[in-house]
Parts: sequence; structure tokens; C-alpha cells
Amino acid sequence: MENNIQDLKPTQHLAPPLGGGGGVGSSVSVFAPATVANVVCGFDVLGFAVNAPGDEVVMRVTNKPGITISKITGDDGRLPMDPAKNTVSVSVKHYLESIGRTDLGLDIELHKKMPIGSGLGSSSASTVAGLFAAKTLLGDTSDPIHQLPFAMKGEEMACGHGHADNVAPALFGGFVLIRSYEPLDVVRLPHPKDLYCAIVFPDVDVPTREARQIIRTKINMKDAVTQWGNIAGLVSGLFMNDIDLIGRSMQDVLVEPVRSMLIPDFYKMRDMAMELGAVSFGISGSGPSVFAFTRDEATAHAITQKLQQHLTGIKIGSNGYVSPINDAGPRVV
Amino acid sequence: MENNIQDLKPTQHLAPPLGGGGGVGSSVSVFAPATVANVVCGFDVLGFAVNAPGDEVVMRVTNKPGITISKITGDDGRLPMDPAKNTVSVSVKHYLESIGRTDLGLDIELHKKMPIGSGLGSSSASTVAGLFAAKTLLGDTSDPIHQLPFAMKGEEMACGHGHADNVAPALFGGFVLIRSYEPLDVVRLPHPKDLYCAIVFPDVDVPTREARQIIRTKINMKDAVTQWGNIAGLVSGLFMNDIDLIGRSMQDVLVEPVRSMLIPDFYKMRDMAMELGAVSFGISGSGPSVFAFTRDEATAHAITQKLQQHLTGIKIGSNGYVSPINDAGPRVV
Repeated sequence: MENNIQDLKPTQHLAPPLGGGGGVGSSVSVFAPATVANVVCGFDVLGFAVNAPGDEVVMRVTNKPGITISKITGDDGRLPMDPAKNTVSVSVKHYLESIGRTDLGLDIELHKKMPIGSGLGSSSASTVAGLFAAKTLLGDTSDPIHQLPFAMKGEEMACGHGHADNVAPALFGGFVLIRSYEPLDVVRLPHPKDLYCAIVFPDVDVPTREARQIIRTKINMKDAVTQWGNIAGLVSGLFMNDIDLIGRSMQDVLVEPVRSMLIPDFYKMRDMAMELGAVSFGISGSGPSVFAFTRDEATAHAITQKLQQHLTGIKIGSNGYVSPINDAGPRVV
Repeated sequence: MENNIQDLKPTQHLAPPLGGGGGVGSSVSVFAPATVANVVCGFDVLGFAVNAPGDEVVMRVTNKPGITISKITGDDGRLPMDPAKNTVSVSVKHYLESIGRTDLGLDIELHKKMPIGSGLGSSSASTVAGLFAAKTLLGDTSDPIHQLPFAMKGEEMACGHGHADNVAPALFGGFVLIRSYEPLDVVRLPHPKDLYCAIVFPDVDVPTREARQIIRTKINMKDAVTQWGNIAGLVSGLFMNDIDLIGRSMQDVLVEPVRSMLIPDFYKMRDMAMELGAVSFGISGSGPSVFAFTRDEATAHAITQKLQQHLTGIKIGSNGYVSPINDAGPRVV
């Protein structure tokens, strides 16, 4: 398992063959998973992937060099069809340039199967689906770590900053730590196999840019110490398969107190989830989605049901998802 | 392995027998190890124990209830002989009270075998040696976690705050994370077996209280994110036996830039150690001792030798120590 990108040489993946019968007209459909970034105590450095929701990209080799987008569904017209402005095509373009295959023609259909602006890594799921589709068409079997920089280019365009805490788990699956950005250093973490995730997206608008802007830039050293004790505890719990320790460690004294204000009845929902047996509860990414870890699937279903009922009662629509942690990352469908 | 103290009931260790032939006149000698707290990126939450240096306590059962201190050596007269003011006797008194054995008479000889105010957990080593001696005389075989609160009482008196990042590794041996103080939650971490530690104590005065006072109370969120990415990387490296990752993660953007000013030629010494092949280099606790991790004993010796030569050249006396990580904690000698 290759855990960091520091020694990555561009020449390592120059011009892979266009394998798998990938001539003009050949195509592939790829699903890439939604992701929960931050994971309560790991602001900007932790994330994990889930089985549902996620996005789908259908990619086809064309006979005209360059990237086109022929269709986008499920976005209510919110995403740009212009290949120079869409995160999927921009990432794929960077990838093709890096391997010297700008001669290639690729057409993209993007099928959004998850809400945009939900805090579930919507743009990352699309981007990673696109990159994996291109990689598959090219027969490129290199470690997915090599595509992380291209995926981050997409994130940079979508969110205004090239963070990796959504794209990295979407690319690799599982739990991922971004130890450092400069140089980029990514560590894939284990997790208890029986950990389930309940996600609820309350249909209110919390744009990522705004959610970032309300976070304080100066914090108390004392709170920072609490936070890094907790992330060290969470990482230990993941390695030790200690779900109690994972639960005790998932506390956020810095970001959640501010961002929770943008989420309707956040603390009420947390109490409900904890009463139903959640291991932990928090904001997914920059919100408004919330998530809970549970020890089994039934508890996760009970939590999504209860929270969605509550949101309906206060006249807010919602989506609910239940999933184990996704260890596979993107896959051909 | 019991990893947290949250559920500790005082009744769990009420009145253990005075075993091991421990009547009046019986005695025991105990060594307890020095410790490196903070470990560069784990300010206030991480620490580990080493085989050398350390302190020794000789404890004897007397026929008069109460605790006496009959001798202290190696302290140049700096430590109090008054049992109400010495960290060793104060901790032991709290322990005896907790198990309802204030009827017992114990006499303490403390042999300081390490410098005071060195940043190597000098008071913790003494305290833990005293607690382990009392526990041994009493035939108390309970998990050492139960003695952590008493050891912290000693630290509180010695340093003005009841921190656990020295006493916990001195008590347990190995690498220890203090995930939280309220409630106290301690996690024992694994480490690569071949990791060596080179320690150099430059004989300059850096009192713990002052070293704490120069640390900023407000910090940048950006720096805090860097720091918790690093502690998460260090903990991952410890679990994964990945010495490269441990080395990459051991960077401190918050405390070292300030505290290093109190240490003569800190950055010169760091460069020397890294050039000789150190995995990492930093301040031990609040300094002035510095330490390096290495992959073998020979490199650790080369580093202590080089740094001590350099300090001699700038007219500063020093002590050097080379040790693997101590996994045993205190022991009868």
C-alpha cells in the first residue's frame, strides 16, 4: 500500500495503453461514493467514504480530440455543461495532460444521484467517477494516489480551495487521513468492520464557501489541545477496533459550535441519535448533512427514520442514507 | 488492557493485603523511568518512557503510622524533606488514603539519578517510583492506571498543574496518549520495536512554569490543523510500524518555535542530529533537554556524542542518554 505521494514521478504514469478494447465508441459507467469529511474532530484532515449516496459518470471514447459533456442529469440545471468549467472534465483534462494523452477524445455523461451542496462531497464523487472512468478506459491500473492531484484541481474549482478530505476517501474508499498538504501526504486508516453510518441531509442551503467563512481563524490553544487529543484518540480507536474509544473521541470544540448554527435543530437531532444508541454524531463536511456512527444497520435505520420524521415536523425536507464504510472507492457499474 | 479510567470505582482497590512478607522492617527498591512528554506534535497529550535516566526510591515499612522521608541524594539539596511538600510522599499519602491504609508507616529514601528541571519528567520518575514501591509492599497487583490520579496529585504540586503526559508513560511504560483530562482517558499506544531515543540535557535553567508561560494562548486555526494532521500521522505511524511516517509527522509549528529560544543552539543541534540520520528531533517536555528518534543504537550514540561535543564547545555542560523505548515502566531493583 502506497501511503504518500511525495516521491511520485510524473514519468511513472506516462502514456498507459488504451487497453480493454478501448477504441473509439467504447464506453464505461462508473459509480463513485459520497464522503463524510472532517469526521467531527478531524477538521480538514479526515474523511471516509460510504456506499450510498454517490454519483455516476458514463464516459465514451470519441473520434475528436478533447473532452465534451453531452448530458448532466439530477442537478436541476445547476452544474455547468462547459468542459472548461465543470469539475469532472477539468480533472480528467489534467489527468490526460499528465499522461500525455491530449490526443484522446472523451465524452462525459454525469448523473447526479446525490444532492448538491449537502456536505457529502458531491463534487468529489462526480470528479472521482470521471477520473476512474478515464483511467478504466485507458487501462491505467496505477495506484489511485496518482490521481489525487487531478481530483484536487476539480475541488479547487468547485469550492475555491484544493482540499483533499473528500476526494481522497472517494478515490481510495475507507478512512483517509491527509497528514499534510505541502507536501501532500495521505495515510489510509483501518476501521472496525461493523461500523455503520446513518446520514441525514436536511434540505436547507449551506454553501461550502460560507460555511468556511464563519469559522474562527484564531482559536484558544487549550481548545486545540482538546481537539488533537481527540483526533489522536479517534485514530487509535480505528486501529484498535475500539468503537467506545472512537465514540468518546468524536467531539469537536472548535468547528461544530459555529457550524451547527446553520443546521436546523442540530443539538435536538444529536440528542435523538445518541438516545437511539449512536456511537457518535456530528456534521458531515461543512453541512448541512449530519451523520451518526452506529454498531449495526438497524440502529442506523432507526436514526435516519427518527431524524427525518423530526425534520418533516418542522417543515424541512430531507434525504436519509444508511451504509457501512465503503472500502472499495469508485467502481465500474 | 484497561485503557481508560472513567469507570474506576475507589472500592476496586480498597485494602489490599500487605503481601510479600511486608511486615514492619520489610523494604523494596524501585526504579522508575524518565519520560519524554509532548513528543514534538503532541503538546500536553503524548509521552513515552525511556530506560535511562530514571530515579530510585527505597521504601521501608515502619512501626509508626505516617510517611517519613529519611534521605534524599542527588538533588543538591533542592528537594523538600518535609513529607507534606515532597511529590513522592504526597502521592503515596493520597494512594494510602484511597485504599484506607493510613494506619501504615512508610519511610522513603529518594535517590535522584537524573537532573532536576531537565524536561525529562524528573518529578514524575520520583513519584512513580514511590507509588510503585508502596504498591509492591502492599501486594497490590491492580492495573497501574488506578495510581495515575495519585501521581497527578504529585505533578500538580511540583509543576502547578496536574498534567499526565509524564506520569502516565512513567507508570505504564511505552507510548501513552492522554486523550482527555476530564474525564481522564488514557490510551496506551504501540511503537516500532527498533526505535531508539537519543537524549541530550544541556545544563541550562528552563523552569517548567516559565516554559509554559511563554506559550501563546491564542493560535491560528491553520496552524492547529497542521498540528492535528501531524499527531494523527504520528499515531498512525506508531500503529503501522512506519518509521518514515513517524519522522514526517514529528513537526511542531506551535510550541517549538517559542520554546526553542530557551535552548542554546536548538536549530544547530537539530541540523546535526538530522544529518547524522535521526528520524526526528525535538524538545523533550518543556526543555531544555532535546531528543532524537533513530532506527538503531549506534546512530543514537553518534548523535548524543556530537551534540554534547558541540555544547562543550559553547561552554555548556550536558548529559547524554541512549535508550530504546521503555515498555516496562517502574521495576523493583
